[in-house]
This record gives sequence, C-alpha cells and structure tokens, in this order.
Amino acid sequence: MLLLIGIGLNDPQDITLKGLEAVQETDYVYLENYTSKLQCSTGDLETFYKKKIILADREFVEDGSIILQQAQEKNVALLIIGDVFSATTHMSLYLQAREKNIAVKIVHNASILTAVGITGLQLYKFGKTTSIPFHDSSTPVQVIKANYPLHTLCLLDLDPKNNKYMEAQDALTMLIHKGLDPETKVIACAQLGSDSSVILYTEAKNVKPLGKFPQCIIVPGELHFMEKEALKTYTFN
Amino acid sequence: MLLLIGIGLNDPQDITLKGLEAVQETDYVYLENYTSKLQCSTGDLETFYKKKIILADREFVEDGSIILQQAQEKNVALLIIGDVFSATTHMSLYLQAREKNIAVKIVHNASILTAVGITGLQLYKFGKTTSIPFHDSSTPVQVIKANYPLHTLCLLDLDPKNNKYMEAQDALTMLIHKGLDPETKVIACAQLGSDSSVILYTEAKNVKPLGKFPQCIIVPGELHFMEKEALKTYTFN
Repeated sequence: MLLLIGIGLNDPQDITLKGLEAVQETDYVYLENYTSKLQCSTGDLETFYKKKIILADREFVEDGSIILQQAQEKNVALLIIGDVFSATTHMSLYLQAREKNIAVKIVHNASILTAVGITGLQLYKFGKTTSIPFHDSSTPVQVIKANYPLHTLCLLDLDPKNNKYMEAQDALTMLIHKGLDPETKVIACAQLGSDSSVILYTEAKNVKPLGKFPQCIIVPGELHFMEKEALKTYTFN
Repeated sequence: MLLLIGIGLNDPQDITLKGLEAVQETDYVYLENYTSKLQCSTGDLETFYKKKIILADREFVEDGSIILQQAQEKNVALLIIGDVFSATTHMSLYLQAREKNIAVKIVHNASILTAVGITGLQLYKFGKTTSIPFHDSSTPVQVIKANYPLHTLCLLDLDPKNNKYMEAQDALTMLIHKGLDPETKVIACAQLGSDSSVILYTEAKNVKPLGKFPQCIIVPGELHFMEKEALKTYTFN
C-alpha cells in the first residue's frame, strides 16, 4: 500500500491523528523535501513520529520506481509538506500506483493555498496561482494582470538542497522589472500557518527582507470592504 | 484566548495533534455547523476529543459577542470544518478579537479547496470559486465562462439545520438552464477527502444522483496532458 500523507506547514504536531497512525503502521517512510520548507528538522519529525525517515528528492519521487516496488508488498508512506496534491509533482506517483493496482491511502492536511486566508483576502476570489522562479520570467506579471480583478498568490522559488530560499523583496524587484507598478500594494508573507508568521501590506517597492522562510507574495485584486478592514491590520509604512 | 481550529473534512481523527491539544486545554468548545458536513456526528467528536461541544449557527458566530466575551477571560475554541478561513464567515470573528486585543491562535487543516487535487486537476490552474445556491442564479455560469481556460470549483449549497444538501445533478440542471452546454464535461464529486469519496468525470447532462454529501462540481478549463490522464481514471459513461 502507498500512503500519501500531508504533514502541514510547520512542525511535527501539524500531522493529523489519522496521518500519525498511518505513518506508525508503515514499513518505509519517505519525506519529500523539495516543494516547501518546514519549521523543524527531519530529526524532530523522526522523534515525534517514532519512525526513521528517508529523504526523497524530486527525481526519486517523480521516477517513483523504488517507492512503487516497495508498495507492492509493504506499506510505504510518502510525507508531503502541505496538502498531498498542492504541488503537481505527486499526482504522477498516485496515477502510477493506481495503474499497478497498488492500494493508495490519502491523508489530507493544511496547505499554503488556504493558509493565505489569514490575510483576510477571500479565498474564493483568488485567480491562477503563479510561481516566481530564480531565473528571469515574464510569466508571473502576465498572470497577475490576467487575474485582475482576482487576487494572485505568487509562490517563491526554493532550493532546499542548497539551502536557498527566495526573499519577497527580490521577487518583487523582478516583478517590477517585468512591468509591475512599484506602487502596487502587495502582501509579503513569511512562514504562513505558523505562530511566527510575518504579514506585511505595503507598496511593492517598500518590501524589505523578511529573513524567515518560506515566503510568498499576494497581489490583491479588487478589494471588498471586509478585505480592506483586514489588510489595515497588516499595514506597514 | 480565542482558538480557531480547523478540523478537516471527515471525522474526529482528521484533527491535527496541535489542534487536539489546543481543544483539550479550552474551557468552551464551539463547533460551527453551517459551512459544510462532516462524516461523523457531534457526539463522535465529543467522545474522541473528550470535550463537550456546543453547536454554533451562523448568526451566533457572525455576531460573535458571546464567544468574544468568554475569550476575554477563558480559552474558547471554535472548531471549523475544513480550514479556518476557507469560508469567509470566520474572518469577522478573527478581526473583532484582534481589535479587542484578545489573543488568537489559529490551527490550520485540510480544505475542500485543495482536497479537489485528487481529481488530477492542477490546483494552481483554478480560477475564482463559485457557490451554487438553492435559488436560481446566473452568477455561477458567468464565473465558469470568465474563468476559462482556468478550472472552476463550484461549491454546492447546504442547509445542515434542515438536513438539506444539494445534489450535483440538481446544480447542473440549474447551470444548464442558465446557459452551460449540457455536453460540457464536468467532474461531480461527493465526500472528497474521505475514503468513501465519489469522483465522476462525464458530461453535465449525464450526472445522476450521488446520494452522499457534501458534493461539489468542477468544470475543467483547458486540460494538460497529465490532467487528461488522471481524469480518464474517473471517466463514467
């Protein structure tokens, strides 16, 4: 059996009771460590889950052959930061398992895609999500403009293997270079979903390094009165 | 202190370890029972959480005065189906608490907004979310058309107090009446995020009653090759 288990956004206690029980009954536990960044170490997870964890990089998960072979005879868990299908990369493994008639169990969890609701922006009013890559790209600004009057969530690139995480300030410099008005009001966020999250509502040109990761940016579209009220509480001049 | 605790989509075991610990340390535990439907009773939650639960309807939560008064001196938890801010209705309580300098703790959880990822549709390609009300409305079809080529998630209305939940078939009849081509391929879903979920990919006119609740409909936009591969596994003729 293959178990795809979302472990949420922060630390060991973010797993669900269902997820923890499932993890503890498996023979192998992998952790994908390339789609986001937890606020704890793999060792913290191992201590709390009472299980040895094997780190799995993108190539290993997307190839999937070892995991699927093990899942034919044993219980194999893949722990996924956030929710199971928030990143597109895990769907391929799920489909391959089903094709091979391997039983699959999914345990959902919190995702950055809904944790952004704490900003006060209404989740149903978000358009397409865009990613801001380390290299130059015109796509994010195009998405932001096409989404308007809807809000745009911009996920910032990361390379955990090399301990490299993008700062909202650098992402915004790139967006401005590609045509975003520097006076556009944006929401720069770090460590959303944790008790130490940072949320700043200010003009794009004013965003300073937040120093905590992962980060994301939201470019709001048209704002409802209630959304404005919420954003006021995060205003930074 | 006010604790806003997402409890996920299904049953008592969907709460996170962090959420359970928080619930057990509170003096009053409310459960909002109007934004969705769990696959268990309030009694099941009480037994598992070892806490008495008070049901709270929309008026009680949106007014908020009793909860906020209690939260000035005691620990008060509001349990929310799905993630905390997936429904817009809980933001007002959060803002009121902050205005009154009441400490607030948020515990995130899984939401229908990302659980739909199991269909194989890529979550970043969804546009605005729409709700299909019991009464006639032209809005959902307008949203679907405006979102294209993005996907549209349609949440179906529900009235748990009167045990009334909308069938995807009835919602689609309304959409077709308002201009949706009856041959549009749609995904009709029931109890997503549970082990007993139903996912059917077929033409709008072909959807039959699913008999399980809650339900939602997704009207896909332009499909990527991988999305088509996933949807094939849910095809129903």
